Amino acid sequence: PVRRLVNTLTPAEIGSLLEALPPTKRLMLWGLVDSEDDGEVLVHCNEEVRESLLQDMDDEEIVAAAESLDLDDLADLFEDLPDTVTENVLKSLDRTDRERLEQALSYPEDSAGRLLNPDIITVRPDVTIDVVLRYLRLRGEMPDHTDHFYVVSRRNQYLGRVAVTRVLTSQLDTPINELIDDSQAPIVVTAEAETVAKSFADHDWISAPVVDANNVLLGRITIDDMVDIIRAQADHNVMSMAGLDEEEDLFAPVRRATRKRALWLGINLLTAFLASFVIGRFEIALEQVVALAILMPVVASMGGIAGTQTLTLIVRGMALGQVSASNAMALLSKEMMVGGFNGVIWAIVVGASAGLWFGDLRLALVIAAAIAINLLAAAASGVMIPLLLRRLDIDPALAGGVVLTTVTDCIGFLAFLGLGTAFLL
Amino acid sequence: PVRRLVNTLTPAEIGSLLEALPPTKRLMLWGLVDSEDDGEVLVHCNEEVRESLLQDMDDEEIVAAAESLDLDDLADLFEDLPDTVTENVLKSLDRTDRERLEQALSYPEDSAGRLLNPDIITVRPDVTIDVVLRYLRLRGEMPDHTDHFYVVSRRNQYLGRVAVTRVLTSQLDTPINELIDDSQAPIVVTAEAETVAKSFADHDWISAPVVDANNVLLGRITIDDMVDIIRAQADHNVMSMAGLDEEEDLFAPVRRATRKRALWLGINLLTAFLASFVIGRFEIALEQVVALAILMPVVASMGGIAGTQTLTLIVRGMALGQVSASNAMALLSKEMMVGGFNGVIWAIVVGASAGLWFGDLRLALVIAAAIAINLLAAAASGVMIPLLLRRLDIDPALAGGVVLTTVTDCIGFLAFLGLGTAFLL
Ligand SMILES: [Mg+2]
Ligand SMILES: [Mg+2]
Ligand SMILES: [Mg+2]
Ligand SMILES: [Mg+2]
Ligand SMILES: [Mg+2]
Ligand SMILES: [Mg+2]
Ligand SMILES: [Mg+2]
Ligand SMILES: [Mg+2]
Ligand SMILES: [Mg+2]
Ligand SMILES: [Mg+2]
Ligand SMILES: [Mg+2]
Ligand SMILES: [Mg+2]
Ligand SMILES: [Mg+2]
Repeated sequence: PVRRLVNTLTPAEIGSLLEALPPTKRLMLWGLVDSEDDGEVLVHCNEEVRESLLQDMDDEEIVAAAESLDLDDLADLFEDLPDTVTENVLKSLDRTDRERLEQALSYPEDSAGRLLNPDIITVRPDVTIDVVLRYLRLRGEMPDHTDHFYVVSRRNQYLGRVAVTRVLTSQLDTPINELIDDSQAPIVVTAEAETVAKSFADHDWISAPVVDANNVLLGRITIDDMVDIIRAQADHNVMSMAGLDEEEDLFAPVRRATRKRALWLGINLLTAFLASFVIGRFEIALEQVVALAILMPVVASMGGIAGTQTLTLIVRGMALGQVSASNAMALLSKEMMVGGFNGVIWAIVVGASAGLWFGDLRLALVIAAAIAINLLAAAASGVMIPLLLRRLDIDPALAGGVVLTTVTDCIGFLAFLGLGTAFLL
Repeated sequence: PVRRLVNTLTPAEIGSLLEALPPTKRLMLWGLVDSEDDGEVLVHCNEEVRESLLQDMDDEEIVAAAESLDLDDLADLFEDLPDTVTENVLKSLDRTDRERLEQALSYPEDSAGRLLNPDIITVRPDVTIDVVLRYLRLRGEMPDHTDHFYVVSRRNQYLGRVAVTRVLTSQLDTPINELIDDSQAPIVVTAEAETVAKSFADHDWISAPVVDANNVLLGRITIDDMVDIIRAQADHNVMSMAGLDEEEDLFAPVRRATRKRALWLGINLLTAFLASFVIGRFEIALEQVVALAILMPVVASMGGIAGTQTLTLIVRGMALGQVSASNAMALLSKEMMVGGFNGVIWAIVVGASAGLWFGDLRLALVIAAAIAINLLAAAASGVMIPLLLRRLDIDPALAGGVVLTTVTDCIGFLAFLGLGTAFLL
């Protein structure tokens, strides 16, 4: 009964469920999955979980699972297979499929070449609808998600596409070439997966043809795989902000998880010591005015929060392709103004609070000035750091937060303790 | 020529471009958009930008833009329209469409009822393929993204669906009822948009039928709109972590942006003062051992970073439906172990560094203990805070970070300064 229940789920749902289970239960569930679904389920798990499931399979099972997959899914899975089986998987394919797989693997990961599916229906421009319809009835089935037929020349060059709906609504004697839609350029096989996914979203495509550099039709990409890419991309953005890997298993072995997290903590430690070093320059002030030690985290923290807001806005804008050199100056000046106004507001609030708490007007003025300075610096950093990182080819979503808070911590401590040294001693 | 260039873009692309432009240039570009695309472009802009564009249109233009939209898009736009035009928009619709729009608006935002499009092709179970094909040629066109015909009873109750591809590949005398696929339950009109989007991703649907509580077919939802929801959801997750609103205009007026950001800064200020208050309890220790003041941000910061990693993992897992009461304990114990190991590693590193810096073994031991305590507390908080917030019906992506860093700051300062007071004075 549990087995039956499991197999009413889609491979994507089973994959997600496997990801959610601790190791022992995960392998129990994996044993209940119909072997014909094994391949699809593996494709829908993240890499670490996939690895843990593959370790539980013998070579024959793996070959059978791989055999059942579409070429695009097999290309995705192939590199994660143990070396002992890759040879057998290749042998299990017929010659055309083997060549296609090798071809697909020759394209960079995250390119259209890895995503394309050669399973398409092509037609010649000179046949009539009637011929197409009779051919389809003869064929008896069509690939999933077929919304277009692709029109190709004798040498398999892409000429355009014909919507299935046009075929259904046109008169039987209409020749295909009257229905060809060539308004949209096909996807080139080397295009980046993310760009392709964005095109799908912008154009509301169900499928799109993929051609090589000579305009020869290689296959098509379908929306279901683009949905997975969009979700994976979103996942990557969220996880990388915390220095995490989106392929990480929720129940990764403790040792592996510890090692991965340690790297990020180590980077942070360096930046934290940098801030401590700045504080250390003001030992005398700290010894004489203990209020400086008590209040300094407030200054650093307000800068960090304000800067993170600006940074997030800019990084999101960069991911959407909306932030570039052409509007960077306008954004900088807007964010500096917002930072300036919030600087004034919170300088007053923090200054007044600190003044009341410690009954010291000069302290109030010092912290107010430090807050204003740090919020302005935060706004500027929030715009400039991600742009700078991108120019250095470093992922702003990954590194932006660390760099930004280092800047706002250091400037915050410097401004507060520096002004404190000047005016309170 | 610029106008022609602009109008080669899709409405989604124009919307994104408008979002990326500062106000003056934005209105210039908006003036170049073909008026027949106005409606679709408005639908593809975020709410603040949409508002700024609507302000630039006169009532007639708005009514014309609204008229051009599919019902689902109109339902999305309608509530953002100025009151002066809503009446005229309703009048411009024929009676059926007006009733459908009012019906759609009666469902909660973010429910299937708002997303459904009544533009579908229904067939009766007793007709043959031949009849369907002749009907389609008579009809002359089909709605975009039609991959299924919906089979309904005389009283418009949903019986199942027939794939367009099945119709194309079956013999002409086959009756529809032999091809009906009723394996998948239709979407109920009150279902949540996010749940529906997840179903589309899990099942690789292009479209799905929507029924009311009596199983009467109301329309269908299509994948292109689910892609937009998945992207908007991802956007929301990233932005809300920084206390930002995903509908915010990149070039929002300074006053509005300042006001919105101020709220988040105010919340943070309260938590920062709470941490300061904790520090203030240890005035004597800080006066006597200035190294405590210099090093205390390191302890707080390491806890914050480690906690944020755990928190991000859990919040992501919750968003994917992978974290629940049933695996919370297993996650807690795994994260505590990871936190414990990293606690030991970084206690040694930080302890050694601090010991060398200040030449004080007892200080080294105090900070080592504080780091270990804070990393353990961070791991526990990272798992428990989001679960607790969800139980309180507070968005963990929004509030998790603030609550977590408050906890790690306070525990960090308490542990470090408390141990310092006990062993260093
Ligand atoms: Mg099995
Ligand atoms: Mg997954
Ligand atoms: Mg891979
Ligand atoms: Mg779209
Ligand atoms: Mg595929
Ligand atoms: Mg797939
Ligand atoms: Mg216009
Ligand atoms: Mg948008
Ligand atoms: Mg709305
Ligand atoms: Mg899918
Ligand atoms: Mg729609
Ligand atoms: Mg749409
Ligand atoms: Mg901090």
